[in-house]
Amino acid sequence: MMKSTESNIKILFEPKSIAIIGASQHKGKIGYKILENIVAGGYKGKIYPINPKGGEILGIKAYKAMEDVPGDVDVATIVVPAEFVYPALKGCAAKKTKFLSIITSGFSEIGNVEEEKKIVSFARENGMRILGPNIFGFFSAGVSLNATFGPKEVKKGGVAIITQSGALGVAMIGKTAVENIGLSAIISVGNKSDLDETDLLRYLINHEETKVIMMYIEGIKDGARLVGILKEATAKKPVIVVKSGRSKRGAIAAASHTGSLAGSDEIFDAIMKQCNVQRAENIKDALEWCKFLSNSPVPTAENAIIITNGGGIGVLATDACEKYGIKLYDDYEALKKTFAPVMPYFGSAKNPIDLTGQAESSHYSLAFTTSLKNKNISSLISLYCETAVFDIQNFEPLIEETYKKYKAAGKPIVFCLVGGEKVEECVKSLRRRDVPAFNDPYEAVSCLGALYSYANYHGESSETIDKPKLDVKSIEEVIKKVRAENRSFLLSNEGQAVVKAAGMPVPQSYIARNIKEAADYAQKIGYPLVMKIVSKDILHKSDVGGVALDLQNKNEVIEAYEAIINNCRTHNPAATIDGVEVSEMVPHGTELIIGARRDPSFGPIVMFGLGGIYVEVMKDVSFRAIPVGRREILSMIKQIRSYPLLLGVRGEAQKDIESVIDSIIKVSGIIESCPAITDIEINPLVVYEKGVKAVDARILISHLK
Amino acid sequence: MMKSTESNIKILFEPKSIAIIGASQHKGKIGYKILENIVAGGYKGKIYPINPKGGEILGIKAYKAMEDVPGDVDVATIVVPAEFVYPALKGCAAKKTKFLSIITSGFSEIGNVEEEKKIVSFARENGMRILGPNIFGFFSAGVSLNATFGPKEVKKGGVAIITQSGALGVAMIGKTAVENIGLSAIISVGNKSDLDETDLLRYLINHEETKVIMMYIEGIKDGARLVGILKEATAKKPVIVVKSGRSKRGAIAAASHTGSLAGSDEIFDAIMKQCNVQRAENIKDALEWCKFLSNSPVPTAENAIIITNGGGIGVLATDACEKYGIKLYDDYEALKKTFAPVMPYFGSAKNPIDLTGQAESSHYSLAFTTSLKNKNISSLISLYCETAVFDIQNFEPLIEETYKKYKAAGKPIVFCLVGGEKVEECVKSLRRRDVPAFNDPYEAVSCLGALYSYANYHGESSETIDKPKLDVKSIEEVIKKVRAENRSFLLSNEGQAVVKAAGMPVPQSYIARNIKEAADYAQKIGYPLVMKIVSKDILHKSDVGGVALDLQNKNEVIEAYEAIINNCRTHNPAATIDGVEVSEMVPHGTELIIGARRDPSFGPIVMFGLGGIYVEVMKDVSFRAIPVGRREILSMIKQIRSYPLLLGVRGEAQKDIESVIDSIIKVSGIIESCPAITDIEINPLVVYEKGVKAVDARILISHLK
Repeated sequence: MMKSTESNIKILFEPKSIAIIGASQHKGKIGYKILENIVAGGYKGKIYPINPKGGEILGIKAYKAMEDVPGDVDVATIVVPAEFVYPALKGCAAKKTKFLSIITSGFSEIGNVEEEKKIVSFARENGMRILGPNIFGFFSAGVSLNATFGPKEVKKGGVAIITQSGALGVAMIGKTAVENIGLSAIISVGNKSDLDETDLLRYLINHEETKVIMMYIEGIKDGARLVGILKEATAKKPVIVVKSGRSKRGAIAAASHTGSLAGSDEIFDAIMKQCNVQRAENIKDALEWCKFLSNSPVPTAENAIIITNGGGIGVLATDACEKYGIKLYDDYEALKKTFAPVMPYFGSAKNPIDLTGQAESSHYSLAFTTSLKNKNISSLISLYCETAVFDIQNFEPLIEETYKKYKAAGKPIVFCLVGGEKVEECVKSLRRRDVPAFNDPYEAVSCLGALYSYANYHGESSETIDKPKLDVKSIEEVIKKVRAENRSFLLSNEGQAVVKAAGMPVPQSYIARNIKEAADYAQKIGYPLVMKIVSKDILHKSDVGGVALDLQNKNEVIEAYEAIINNCRTHNPAATIDGVEVSEMVPHGTELIIGARRDPSFGPIVMFGLGGIYVEVMKDVSFRAIPVGRREILSMIKQIRSYPLLLGVRGEAQKDIESVIDSIIKVSGIIESCPAITDIEINPLVVYEKGVKAVDARILISHLK
Repeated sequence: MMKSTESNIKILFEPKSIAIIGASQHKGKIGYKILENIVAGGYKGKIYPINPKGGEILGIKAYKAMEDVPGDVDVATIVVPAEFVYPALKGCAAKKTKFLSIITSGFSEIGNVEEEKKIVSFARENGMRILGPNIFGFFSAGVSLNATFGPKEVKKGGVAIITQSGALGVAMIGKTAVENIGLSAIISVGNKSDLDETDLLRYLINHEETKVIMMYIEGIKDGARLVGILKEATAKKPVIVVKSGRSKRGAIAAASHTGSLAGSDEIFDAIMKQCNVQRAENIKDALEWCKFLSNSPVPTAENAIIITNGGGIGVLATDACEKYGIKLYDDYEALKKTFAPVMPYFGSAKNPIDLTGQAESSHYSLAFTTSLKNKNISSLISLYCETAVFDIQNFEPLIEETYKKYKAAGKPIVFCLVGGEKVEECVKSLRRRDVPAFNDPYEAVSCLGALYSYANYHGESSETIDKPKLDVKSIEEVIKKVRAENRSFLLSNEGQAVVKAAGMPVPQSYIARNIKEAADYAQKIGYPLVMKIVSKDILHKSDVGGVALDLQNKNEVIEAYEAIINNCRTHNPAATIDGVEVSEMVPHGTELIIGARRDPSFGPIVMFGLGGIYVEVMKDVSFRAIPVGRREILSMIKQIRSYPLLLGVRGEAQKDIESVIDSIIKVSGIIESCPAITDIEINPLVVYEKGVKAVDARILISHLK
């Protein structure tokens, strides 16, 4: 796939000229609406309406064809009916157009896949990139370009929005204006026939005016690229994502709507965390977070403090802090000393600091200053419940002043005020001036939580990822043999060979072709032993008597060899038998599963869990996108609920977690280095106090080159 | 504790006269504010301000003392400082006052427990009940009585609020007015020195004007009573609860604030579900649910339908439906047939029904009618994303008309509209007229979800609870003996005796006092066997060699007997040895834990989980308050994540779930019937394809009568 570079994607966001193919005189038409928006928005570049009738539209000269336009055109917005889109491309190519914004719908989203492909391929051949089709267009604040059929008024500011849904996008333009959220850009990707989120992010990452990026996603087509750019993006600014289709039912609805398969939500969620992307459940929360994060400093440490005039709301905010992962400052002695001078005798100097219902603005003022000048307190949650005695007229300016002062000092604050008409008016008035005021403690705390979640990860983002050393040549030899036999699965011993080539400890194992060899190998390995038939024609080995466990001596080995060969011959006289595998029986330990596969959305991903029931029944597993660093792998291991079993319960010693991390890196390495391998599952990987053993490996390959 | 009856609690809510002890001339004082609110509210009963100076306040004759008031007084509101509250009670008693609403703070919440006790005990002796102290008062719409120091204006309507936090309560009076939520009553319980939620619910359950009850709770003092009344209440109307202190940190903050211990949140949550109480996370959601539930019909079946003009928002709403437990209608063929006439060619007739961005009001109208006249569709979620072409001026009346028509027809609807200023105005205007309109799909769906959650349980609330048959006399004999020996724990054989007396199958077991007895018992039971020392002086039996497992024959039994006695004598020569227990070794099965204890908040509760790691590491357990019926026990069993293990995994047969239910009923019965027992834990209870065995029982008793 052709990769867009930052320099050329800039032309889409900052074009010097734009053509509207299908511009119209008729007010009801999209071709009129878009031109009207471009003009009304104050776009300073050249505007070329294209309409077969020519003449003038909205006082601007219209051209009968693209070819008639003088000079080149950076961007062409296309609104003609689906069947006229392809024919319009020739003129665009003639004018060396760089980007086509295809508003028109009626392509892959309704099954008209071929026409879309034709358009993309013609565009590519002629050096043009496509946004859409099936979009509402795009808005770019830098050049005051509103090339959408959405609302005329767009408030400018620091939030960039990329949306897969056109309808929601248009609604969000209105919604952001109402909520006083300024946009640096809003852009709809629709069918993503060519450009997708990744291409657009490339521009937004380095776009200085963009402080926060929000994305509404329904399905992902090239997740591996997206993961890379998201990691880059969040190292510079917060990214907030809403992904719909999180439920099973929703995923079906999403698929019917966009044509791109919605990935499993657990995987999406895990990978967003890995990329330090903040995931909101719904649009409302996402926009609140955007507003807050674009207006607040990123805290450099933990330790928040709650100031309240009511115990109840203080407890609610405390609950919310736990939910959203905010650590409250809890050095009680220090708090007592700090707040003693400002406390009424029956208030509490524990955090939440309770100023009680008697508090007036002046008490808040004192408490704010006392808290925020304390270097151990990094952020503030201010709560107010309406009381009869309170001087709210003084509170509003106090809030604004405090917010601004400590914004400059790097300390974020959220204010929550609950009460009647006067209180609501105060909240609204503060919000209009971009002060983070809320009327519900959970909303306030959720915003601060998103900020901390972003900030806390931030410090860890520099992890370097070591590539494991693999004997790729050996692995490729195994695969070559499997392919030659036209199989898509590896035999047990082949799987072991791959795992061994990746440097993982496997049980000692040999293939005996006769009784003597079996006895010799047994002698070499030592007892107890396991024996298994090796034959590509016998898959369910246990069922046919092709396995013997816990063999304790030479006699048992000899008997087992004969029994296994006999059983298998009886079961399938025509089977090709390669021999009998004689393996070390590994001692008892904690059984784990490590899996890796190529996810249809995200490319290579790795999975970790405890073996058996924990995976099968409890679904207690965690995921990451590959590549993944040691620290992130550790967080992946700690994330499973059964993690305490690795630390040792009931008097058992701790397991060798470092070796588990090594194993995850190695399994990731196999799937990264060997494009033929589609699935690996080490089950079980047995972990001990010291070391691990990969007992069995199930590996699948594709037959595509 | 004295129980309030419905008839006398009615006097609190509907008094014929009210005195204000501490009424004041001074505008800044609470004694002025309350009188002002009572007068402004239009209370028609008799009002008696009490102030040592006499005279007139707000044009009403003030009395120097209660004793001067002519005739009796139903309710006295007390606002004098803490030290003058007790002295004021004599006058109240003289006037046969029935209820005291003690606004004053400075009692148990700051450690002044004795004064509070003194007040309660004097009141009780004189037939008076106390609301508070440490409250903002109460409002009762039926008699237009606003005896609070909160806002003057209270909107009347169908929602009753009971709040433990005064500050939040006052704020909620304002908040409900802003949100256009009408109140039938709002009442603060503060320190709950006497009256608590249970007493107040007794009135509200049968109060016809109250359609929905909301409670804000911080801590629970007498949960067992509360559970009973909540079950009664939800059989008649929805109850919505916000419980703060759900986090560990929040629970500490709550305890410091109210002085009542916040119970474990998991237990609270489980018991609320058992009572069909809808639990909201925060005040905002709770009030939204109240408003919606008080204005919407309760659906009689499942099957909701989503109508949308945008696929994206449709998917978000679908996700929300799964989150909030709403079942979407999904008979695709029926849907296709129903909607074919109204669908544009590229919309989707799957649920969500997508009218596409071209839709106008008339399309919605058709889709509404088509859906709602269909008897298989029980509720509707209508979604709208702002588009350029839409006629919102027609949409608003359509929404209101549709809502009203189908409210009468028993079909609830929620409307969600997302967009700019015009759309927001439309939502606000609808909300002012009590039409359930929202600007976020999750909010809309969460309200409908609360309604379904209430409605779906409703049908199951009639379950009768059978008492298990227990041999209480045998159990009491065991307890008597344990008490006589001054122990608070039962020995293993005593535990088994209790469990057996409850009718639970236990392993066959005898205490042998010599080798011959041991051999005889072994013969009687059959092999394999387990043997254990019986001695109150030896607790960690395994550690000292006091246990022998898997004994296969007489010789092994004899050897084991000698070894056990020897080991224990060596370990503790002074130990009193009662003998050696010879028990059947139970066959392998699935190990469960059933526990029951007296919870400090809720009284007797029962716990269920899978044994071993599942409880210890995965914390995979469920709780219910006792008494609990079979159907509810089944839901308790199904609730644990490891439930599939009982259904049989990996080719195992299903376990005997009916016997597990019996066992839970029996354990519940033991703790219900034997007040001395504080804790029981059957661990393990082994369950088979047929039947169960209670292998070990740990039982604790109290030494209080």
